[in-house]
Amino acid sequence: MQKVYNFSAGPSVLADEVKLQAQKDFLNFNGSGMSVTEMSHRSKWYEDINNEAGALLRELMGIGDDYYVLFVQGGASTQFEAVPLNLLVKGKADYLVTGNFAEKAAKEAQKYGDIRIAASSKDKAFTYIPDLDTVEFRDDIDYVHFTMNNTIFGTRFTKFPKTAAPLVTDMSSNILSEVVDVNRFQLIYAGAQKNIGPAGVTIVIVKKDAIDHPMAICPTMLKYSTQAAADSLYNTPPCFSVYMSMLTFRWLKKLGGVAEIQKINEYKAGLLYDFIDNSSFYTNRVNPADRSIMNVPFVTPSPETDAKFIKEAAANGLVSLKGHRLAGGMRASIYNAMPVEGVKALIDFMKKFETENR
Amino acid sequence: MQKVYNFSAGPSVLADEVKLQAQKDFLNFNGSGMSVTEMSHRSKWYEDINNEAGALLRELMGIGDDYYVLFVQGGASTQFEAVPLNLLVKGKADYLVTGNFAEKAAKEAQKYGDIRIAASSKDKAFTYIPDLDTVEFRDDIDYVHFTMNNTIFGTRFTKFPKTAAPLVTDMSSNILSEVVDVNRFQLIYAGAQKNIGPAGVTIVIVKKDAIDHPMAICPTMLKYSTQAAADSLYNTPPCFSVYMSMLTFRWLKKLGGVAEIQKINEYKAGLLYDFIDNSSFYTNRVNPADRSIMNVPFVTPSPETDAKFIKEAAANGLVSLKGHRLAGGMRASIYNAMPVEGVKALIDFMKKFETENR
Repeated sequence: MQKVYNFSAGPSVLADEVKLQAQKDFLNFNGSGMSVTEMSHRSKWYEDINNEAGALLRELMGIGDDYYVLFVQGGASTQFEAVPLNLLVKGKADYLVTGNFAEKAAKEAQKYGDIRIAASSKDKAFTYIPDLDTVEFRDDIDYVHFTMNNTIFGTRFTKFPKTAAPLVTDMSSNILSEVVDVNRFQLIYAGAQKNIGPAGVTIVIVKKDAIDHPMAICPTMLKYSTQAAADSLYNTPPCFSVYMSMLTFRWLKKLGGVAEIQKINEYKAGLLYDFIDNSSFYTNRVNPADRSIMNVPFVTPSPETDAKFIKEAAANGLVSLKGHRLAGGMRASIYNAMPVEGVKALIDFMKKFETENR
Repeated sequence: MQKVYNFSAGPSVLADEVKLQAQKDFLNFNGSGMSVTEMSHRSKWYEDINNEAGALLRELMGIGDDYYVLFVQGGASTQFEAVPLNLLVKGKADYLVTGNFAEKAAKEAQKYGDIRIAASSKDKAFTYIPDLDTVEFRDDIDYVHFTMNNTIFGTRFTKFPKTAAPLVTDMSSNILSEVVDVNRFQLIYAGAQKNIGPAGVTIVIVKKDAIDHPMAICPTMLKYSTQAAADSLYNTPPCFSVYMSMLTFRWLKKLGGVAEIQKINEYKAGLLYDFIDNSSFYTNRVNPADRSIMNVPFVTPSPETDAKFIKEAAANGLVSLKGHRLAGGMRASIYNAMPVEGVKALIDFMKKFETENR
């Protein structure tokens, strides 16, 4: 088979080592004679997986004992509602709207309290992060919410909001890709399907003292306290997704951890941005200081040429490069598991395509 | 490796053919060069999986066009809340409490409306199904809810409640194990991890005209209309769980469908119940007419002997036979994918153990 580089924004490329291990052990995990897809979540085998996954994530991100690490279901979209349902005590929160998912998060929260959009970059098609030195937040709010990396538009926060209010952030598309001080946050959430594992599990990292006052209308299954009390085993968890996440955590630890992968990610992103910036054919519209190192959107001189690019790239084993319908053009998602060779292969193809279509 | 028979109540044994296929295609699904664990849910490949899974389930269960078939996240536990949040319009429903999960479903629903327990079998440790000829339901209710098969206590409904009200049922532990007329129901839900596939996906089969009046406080992600409008792709689905569910549907169809597997299930259950009933050492406490063909609880003369049985059975490759903590003793879950040989191996071991421990 042809070697394929998968630039999908999510679900996304997993490390070869992780996939090979999962395949090898697929019929017989750890001598159990069973597949992880069929074993009881109350078995010693799965208990070990659940514990190791949690412990490794704590180690990789430097998460202290004052936080719960939860594995839940429903994706970040469910967290858009779980966050206000659990954290709105005074009933007020401020949101930064820097993309489609940030906007959805704010919209869902508005059903549950007094939500103010403190700043938005919608005026320029979400191509920048608002200047955090000038954004003002209300005094009496429960939290400030922002989306640390914006998957569709290719921006990221390199600084955090200046406020005494607790911070809540959606790290779905940048978790474990760069060093982040967890202690700055009240709550971090992330769908696993970009930098961690198969879709179906969502990570929630939340301060232990923040989960005791869910709103009365909060469903039991959306309360953080429900899974916190049961070590994420209140009901049947998405076992195989947690298992493959654990394999990714092992892989990342062996590779040197988050600081090490961050260097590689910055190198990969640098290669691609440098090539685009030095080209008169390809354009990335994002404010350079706010560029994501995970998602790199770009366009050619015309939508027709974009369509041709996507088609020919796929024929050359560079797949899922089509940009989100809200952004158009192309998008290369170069998460942790995308090897440097994949980015180089993309750049080689871009060069060739430019020559043929200039 | 020793051959293992997995009697877990859920997640549960999957068919060898299904696991082998998933392992074979794990690194390269359908020539895509990608694993299903990492491919975009917006790709043609996954769209095909989503469509085939839905179409096969419709075919296997005889689900008409007046129903939506949804693949959602959160388990049956989330449906305990989604059901009342979506279906309570008049604000009233009646519940039959025939086990732990039925009781939880009623308890969660009580937060959202006027919920009446129409009948309960808690008085005799859930060892029977209430006489449906004498159970009375209120006239002005939105629905009657019951749990068709009770995983922990090993009972099942062989008839349905007599009422003009719409019926809602939890089929987590008996879906696809016996022929059921879907047209009798307003809504059927089932976690996949017993008779279908890996944990992480929940099946919802709901009348199209029943989903337009969710309660105002219903979270967007718990509204059936959200996923119905998006063909279960509103947000990233649990792709690999849906994929393996599709493989199970293919396997079941090839095997002859639900009517055929029902015969096999009745044969397997018959072997085990006959053996237990003819033994003076083992006891099944369930009212014979209400016995589950999926979950068979039994005890030896003492808790100490039960513990010994569970330990020695595991050493002989018969695993996950420990009963639920609420029921004690043993429980053999003999879902669709448990081969006849597995049940025979269990009976052989039971004979031997009886001889040695009488």
